[in-house]
Amino acid sequence: MILIRPEEIDVDNRCRLDGTRARHIRKVLKAEAGKQLRIGMLDGPMGSGEVLQVDGDTVTLQCTFAPDPPAYPCVDLLLALPRPKVMKRLWAQLAALGVGRIVLLRADKVERFYFDSHVLDPDFYSGLLIEGLQQARCTHLPEVLVRPLFKPFVEDELDSLVNGQLKLLADPSGDQRLGDLVSGAGDAERVVLAIGPEGGWTPYELELLQEHGFELFSLGKRMLRTDTATVGLLAILHEMLSRSGV
Amino acid sequence: MILIRPEEIDVDNRCRLDGTRARHIRKVLKAEAGKQLRIGMLDGPMGSGEVLQVDGDTVTLQCTFAPDPPAYPCVDLLLALPRPKVMKRLWAQLAALGVGRIVLLRADKVERFYFDSHVLDPDFYSGLLIEGLQQARCTHLPEVLVRPLFKPFVEDELDSLVNGQLKLLADPSGDQRLGDLVSGAGDAERVVLAIGPEGGWTPYELELLQEHGFELFSLGKRMLRTDTATVGLLAILHEMLSRSGV
Repeated sequence: MILIRPEEIDVDNRCRLDGTRARHIRKVLKAEAGKQLRIGMLDGPMGSGEVLQVDGDTVTLQCTFAPDPPAYPCVDLLLALPRPKVMKRLWAQLAALGVGRIVLLRADKVERFYFDSHVLDPDFYSGLLIEGLQQARCTHLPEVLVRPLFKPFVEDELDSLVNGQLKLLADPSGDQRLGDLVSGAGDAERVVLAIGPEGGWTPYELELLQEHGFELFSLGKRMLRTDTATVGLLAILHEMLSRSGV
Repeated sequence: MILIRPEEIDVDNRCRLDGTRARHIRKVLKAEAGKQLRIGMLDGPMGSGEVLQVDGDTVTLQCTFAPDPPAYPCVDLLLALPRPKVMKRLWAQLAALGVGRIVLLRADKVERFYFDSHVLDPDFYSGLLIEGLQQARCTHLPEVLVRPLFKPFVEDELDSLVNGQLKLLADPSGDQRLGDLVSGAGDAERVVLAIGPEGGWTPYELELLQEHGFELFSLGKRMLRTDTATVGLLAILHEMLSRSGV
């Protein structure tokens, strides 16, 4: 799927692309005039684009969009920032699985220098997020917040960000099961999932998050790498929420 | 957790380690005589090892094991071999999530040269599987089968390998939900999950697998990368099976 920004579409629903997307259309999809391509409007509806013209490096599409955008992802993520190498691997997968908002948070067992990494530069991660959306055929670009101070974020900002959501806190010390928490959530329409660093949350961090309404659960006895745990938990939540109709 | 092979343990339950594990114990865990370490016997029980002696590059442990090994993973995987780069990323995650047997299979949309890659060399992947087991604190080393011919494998070998298991086939064309198939499975104690290549199974492949008892399901509308889909599906299955008591 080719993602198009709203401002790239003119009043006649035409769109001229160059750069990476035009090259992909020409070289990989080998599209010529008349061919229909699967497109999506960033943060908007899916649709199809008829190739009107391929002119040098430029491709012109006539766009038609569905009346409604796809459902907004029902899960937000509060993630203790993993090592840059792991975070780099995660960006596209988070967008593909579907996350509304990603908060990358400092925790005691997160090295401070991770926050200086280029993987947190919007120019770096936007491309990966869009790659994930195009792969998954979805249009909702996750909002990204970076918060290098744990306590001020939790005490001053968190409550208003996750107001009314089911708040879940993954930690091996949890003795509740995810399914029981989700099915007992009643009318909460959105979920926020907090995932700690490789070394785990500290008792203080667990306590503070629980004071702010987060419920502790564990996925079982296995200790998983941050990226494995994050992908696994998002997949489980999406599957549970689509079944429970939340 | 430090994994130890049964043949490395002597009649007095002592074990002398050198190489990577001894270095890890000395440099990362900074263990001295008297310290208790978490250990596991490969394909056997978990336990603890008391450091008896650190002598140059060698560490000697006195091992004590639990009476029973941890539960054997209840999921087997039939995976159309992904690109070597993706497969390399998957090995440790598969072992950490828990898989009994991994069959890496040719499919129409799998390039033949993938099977020549060093990522299928047991000397290469064993280390990654053990890394995943140690991280997850589990002892069951997945059995790995590599099958570069789809039709002979499915027609001649598959039935006996997956006899009595719930057989699940992931494909975007599926209209059943995973949860319904799992909860309707009755007394099947083990599950085999088939995951196709990035380009999807062909209609012929889908049909042949269904003739051999596989039931088609889809995870939703999102198209996921092989590694994201595999990690997500294994996490979902483990969560569902632990809840349903299968």
